Amino acid sequence: MSARPILDDVVAVADFESIARSLMARAAFDYIAGGAGDELTLAENLASWRRRILRPRVLVDVRALDTTTTFLGDTAALPLAIAPIAAHGLAHPDAELATARAAAAAGILFVLSTMATRSIEEVSRAAPTGIRWFQLYVQGDRAFARTLVERAAAAGYRAIVLTVDLPVLGSRERDRRNGFRLDVPLGNFPNRVAQVTSGATATDGYGVLGGQRHVGLVWEDVAEIRSWTGLPLVLKGILEPEDALRAVESGADAIVVSNHGARQLDRVAPALDVLEGIVAAVGGRIEVYVDGGVRRGSDLAIARALGARGVLVGRPVLWALAAGGEAGVARLLALFREEFETTLALLGTPTVDAIARDRVR
Amino acid sequence: MSARPILDDVVAVADFESIARSLMARAAFDYIAGGAGDELTLAENLASWRRRILRPRVLVDVRALDTTTTFLGDTAALPLAIAPIAAHGLAHPDAELATARAAAAAGILFVLSTMATRSIEEVSRAAPTGIRWFQLYVQGDRAFARTLVERAAAAGYRAIVLTVDLPVLGSRERDRRNGFRLDVPLGNFPNRVAQVTSGATATDGYGVLGGQRHVGLVWEDVAEIRSWTGLPLVLKGILEPEDALRAVESGADAIVVSNHGARQLDRVAPALDVLEGIVAAVGGRIEVYVDGGVRRGSDLAIARALGARGVLVGRPVLWALAAGGEAGVARLLALFREEFETTLALLGTPTVDAIARDRVR
Amino acid sequence: MSARPILDDVVAVADFESIARSLMARAAFDYIAGGAGDELTLAENLASWRRRILRPRVLVDVRALDTTTTFLGDTAALPLAIAPIAAHGLAHPDAELATARAAAAAGILFVLSTMATRSIEEVSRAAPTGIRWFQLYVQGDRAFARTLVERAAAAGYRAIVLTVDLPVLGSRERDRRNGFRLDVPLGNFPNRVAQVTSGATATDGYGVLGGQRHVGLVWEDVAEIRSWTGLPLVLKGILEPEDALRAVESGADAIVVSNHGARQLDRVAPALDVLEGIVAAVGGRIEVYVDGGVRRGSDLAIARALGARGVLVGRPVLWALAAGGEAGVARLLALFREEFETTLALLGTPTVDAIARDRVR
Amino acid sequence: MSARPILDDVVAVADFESIARSLMARAAFDYIAGGAGDELTLAENLASWRRRILRPRVLVDVRALDTTTTFLGDTAALPLAIAPIAAHGLAHPDAELATARAAAAAGILFVLSTMATRSIEEVSRAAPTGIRWFQLYVQGDRAFARTLVERAAAAGYRAIVLTVDLPVLGSRERDRRNGFRLDVPLGNFPNRVAQVTSGATATDGYGVLGGQRHVGLVWEDVAEIRSWTGLPLVLKGILEPEDALRAVESGADAIVVSNHGARQLDRVAPALDVLEGIVAAVGGRIEVYVDGGVRRGSDLAIARALGARGVLVGRPVLWALAAGGEAGVARLLALFREEFETTLALLGTPTVDAIARDRVR
Repeated sequence: MSARPILDDVVAVADFESIARSLMARAAFDYIAGGAGDELTLAENLASWRRRILRPRVLVDVRALDTTTTFLGDTAALPLAIAPIAAHGLAHPDAELATARAAAAAGILFVLSTMATRSIEEVSRAAPTGIRWFQLYVQGDRAFARTLVERAAAAGYRAIVLTVDLPVLGSRERDRRNGFRLDVPLGNFPNRVAQVTSGATATDGYGVLGGQRHVGLVWEDVAEIRSWTGLPLVLKGILEPEDALRAVESGADAIVVSNHGARQLDRVAPALDVLEGIVAAVGGRIEVYVDGGVRRGSDLAIARALGARGVLVGRPVLWALAAGGEAGVARLLALFREEFETTLALLGTPTVDAIARDRVR
Repeated sequence: MSARPILDDVVAVADFESIARSLMARAAFDYIAGGAGDELTLAENLASWRRRILRPRVLVDVRALDTTTTFLGDTAALPLAIAPIAAHGLAHPDAELATARAAAAAGILFVLSTMATRSIEEVSRAAPTGIRWFQLYVQGDRAFARTLVERAAAAGYRAIVLTVDLPVLGSRERDRRNGFRLDVPLGNFPNRVAQVTSGATATDGYGVLGGQRHVGLVWEDVAEIRSWTGLPLVLKGILEPEDALRAVESGADAIVVSNHGARQLDRVAPALDVLEGIVAAVGGRIEVYVDGGVRRGSDLAIARALGARGVLVGRPVLWALAAGGEAGVARLLALFREEFETTLALLGTPTVDAIARDRVR
Repeated sequence: MSARPILDDVVAVADFESIARSLMARAAFDYIAGGAGDELTLAENLASWRRRILRPRVLVDVRALDTTTTFLGDTAALPLAIAPIAAHGLAHPDAELATARAAAAAGILFVLSTMATRSIEEVSRAAPTGIRWFQLYVQGDRAFARTLVERAAAAGYRAIVLTVDLPVLGSRERDRRNGFRLDVPLGNFPNRVAQVTSGATATDGYGVLGGQRHVGLVWEDVAEIRSWTGLPLVLKGILEPEDALRAVESGADAIVVSNHGARQLDRVAPALDVLEGIVAAVGGRIEVYVDGGVRRGSDLAIARALGARGVLVGRPVLWALAAGGEAGVARLLALFREEFETTLALLGTPTVDAIARDRVR
Repeated sequence: MSARPILDDVVAVADFESIARSLMARAAFDYIAGGAGDELTLAENLASWRRRILRPRVLVDVRALDTTTTFLGDTAALPLAIAPIAAHGLAHPDAELATARAAAAAGILFVLSTMATRSIEEVSRAAPTGIRWFQLYVQGDRAFARTLVERAAAAGYRAIVLTVDLPVLGSRERDRRNGFRLDVPLGNFPNRVAQVTSGATATDGYGVLGGQRHVGLVWEDVAEIRSWTGLPLVLKGILEPEDALRAVESGADAIVVSNHGARQLDRVAPALDVLEGIVAAVGGRIEVYVDGGVRRGSDLAIARALGARGVLVGRPVLWALAAGGEAGVARLLALFREEFETTLALLGTPTVDAIARDRVR
């Protein structure tokens, strides 16, 4: 089956979800789509964006729209990055190679997961011109984690994204009901297969590899990891202003306000709802990103108005990958770009920096 | 099929919608009914009126009800005007001629769209006694736009309504899914056909004719257009108090608080929700109208209580036109009149001016 | 069919609604059940009670429950009266005779409508021991209205309830869709048939008899009607504190805060929602009742806590009458009594007067 | 049928409900599941927990999780106790013996109902190592009630839980519609059968045994009961701060903020919603527990953050018992433990006492 005819019908990001649902095995689709517990936060992640009201100004000169911004100094085509997601191979055999190629072609930042199907080096070779960050799970074997950081630096990755919200794995009930196991190869591990041994629920974190359950990171570890590399360090998974402040103090260069796609603790706030408090606490000292539930180009404007430098988008990328491999991801990114351009024009904010706080209620 | 038996069953404005749905081609119906993006604002436009609470006074003398008001000095039978809508020919072969005749017979103000099926002059000849305004899209060929204004003035139109919220066309996904193109003749253009060339999405704005995408108006253009004519100038598509103030300063005679029927940027506020702030900013210096989601005679009272001089009603007019041509629109306007009369009587406000701010919570 | 087996299955007031729906002609059921416009206020009337939170106290001595109160000095078994409703004959051939007998047997106040199927005198003879009030529509022929008052006084009715919220008839769309006409005999009129001539919508008000549309009462009329009788005068249909104050000044002895069962102007507030403001304005000078959406014994406690002397219940009475004639109404009243007793016991308020403001949030 | 295969499929507490629904007779299931009146409070009990937002901290050392707490000085494995519920025999022939064994094995506090299928002594013998409290209904025959207290003390029960919110029985309409009668043997009564004689509605309270309807306890009785035993006294069924204060003054050692599983008075607040006000009023002088709608391990954290020492869980225990007897209850308690552990780890609160007020919004 050719992906093209399917992609031609895509009008909105949400279309990729139904296409992926029809193409993927149920358990794999559910692994990507599902959240923790009752999935209350999963629903709220989507709702949080839809609750916001845009305030458009008219008769502004929007002939020269500029959608670019920077992430830690590197220019990106949109204030949007591809979130780290385990095992793109679940969605398409080209896995992260396809995603990275589409991102590079579109000028979009791509964050590679420790748990990727393809390795740090393979992805780098596949899309050498793209901006890439590497997401790190550090638990258990610290020496191995350090080699991951060193490999990423050597392969031209521009920052390390340390996931801090996975001291244990959240309870994703869809996976438990489906008996889902993440049994695809993982490219960054020596023998290229996952070492998941802690049961049906241990499906997406290096932290639970080897059955090491209660072995989370603590703030002292951040200082150590900071010392491993000269690359910028981004802490991902913060939901409270106090932790954001601590991140600043710990030498982090940026944070991602995130509830891990609602996959860890159900009933936490959508990241968007706590963004402003965190932005205020950080006071501009480091960059702040936000993720969870981004589905529209206008979401990028909402995030910017509320103080985020950009958003990360997760599930839609795997849906698009499932729908059409590299072409699918390219179509997804083009859709975000089109919608963001229209939003800028209709908001009366021709540049990303023009999206002031008062453009969103 | 005779329209009469169908019209006899109409009890409420919403009935026209189901009749039109059953009579029209799906894509044409969707073009009229649809909104931008997820249609969140489309739903909110309707909900905004339903959230308001009327506060009736009793034992008031309401024997002599007077539903009339004025729009820019001209008397109208109701504080309701027919909004500018492209291509009435989609709904009925008589197109704007039928709408204008019904409006004139009912003493209702009719606003003709630049993108009308019939021309400025044809409409004027069809309903010479009615009050008419002309809605102007100005982009691309300015000289042609100026001739439109001059033709409208010559044909007895009483004001120019300049649409200011269409720097680019919003993304109406129903049209994209339906592959809808606006391919009916457009009466105001030299060769009487639309010059739509910018793709499936370019369906209702002169601004996007000829593929001129990022070519919007700016405030400086308003001054120029103001200089073209001695007719009153109404700016349509304002949602922020600052823009309303700017409209006053730019010499506009009135504004329409409007989100373009929720067809431009999804997630903006319903016009009704921002009306009061705008009325306060304007401070009575110019007239303020409101549109989006008007479906009941009581909506007219709500708009008046909140400071609008009148409302514009859009989609229901095309539904009524589809349901019964001129007779359909006449029935629609009669329904609004009946409901508005009942509202005045039961509110204890025998005249339009008696609807004070405190009649609505 | 015997009513008994049906009544044996009744567990809640709402059960009568489904029984009546299955037994009555659709148009007659709809006439009773329907409201004005979109029936938004109809739904809100029910919701207004359900939004309230009861605050129970424990370990109070509730052995001696006393559910009685007084209406204008007359003792009633419950703070509940039967609202004036036109044409009980629609529901059951015994019409108001059955309702009045059941009310008298239960010690419940019964308010007879001007538009009753049976006459003032017939009802009085059928249930001579019950407390009865007479509801008056005064429009058109004032001399005739005065004779109604005099007949009520002569027949032992204890108060006149003047309906003040029907200057014109509300638009009940169910009736218009059903082509419903109120063509049952009306006992209080000389020739015992309704003089409804103003069309399909003129279905429940004397005010619209004879096509006299814009002929409502005004405050000056209240003084005149006040002079016709020494009986207490109750004004029914007030929703605003200013009108409640005016009622006090006009010499009324009580008011009913009411939106006419949501049958007049859609989008007005539920009476319960405006009760407190009105009670505060009245300041105890006259009695205040409330109606609209009462379906539970606990509603009586809610109304009392918020300052009403009692509630009026309407539609459920006709449903119960349809379900079982006098026995049906008796069952309905017994149900209200049981539920109110349970509420008193569980609230820790053994008497009606013990239901202080703080028992409801 | 073996319970094991069914239990293997249980992933969440709610799963037990559907299993029980499929295994139990409808009327018995409804007796357990149902609430009073319209079951508005029943729905709110569940919703009250879901409305709360958890605020997780990251990078906290959670290697040594400790889920234990104490109830009146006795250590329990979780801040969760099994609520007193009548007639476990409805769910499983092993009745309270199975429940008590599972609770003891899991280190969970078990509260035995006066209306239990098995007697005080049988339960004590079945699970001698568990912590047990005895719930007391005191109405009618006080001497008999006193013997119950003395038997509980002699059998090693550690506290008396006096139910104070049942002066009369609430109206549970499911039971009335089903014609349900509680006709299983009751172990604590001399002839081991229930003496329910007051009709179909008298289904779960000793207070209504023998038809003694309006015979509730009053505050003076608490002092008397207090004098019967040296065991701690817990008052269950308080929803107002004033009553909580009175409980402190009356010498109670703890209270359960509870609306009796929404089975008494519909439209009262969920216990969780009034918890904080009561905790503030009590000021730490006695322990405060909360029940009603607990279905998730995270609920335990929410209750603790808001000031409760622990929660009681009711219906899920009978569902688990129906699903698998002792093994079912064991699985239920294991599930609560797993979820609570995950919650502690992801909240960043390694101990129960670490769950400060600010962990919940």
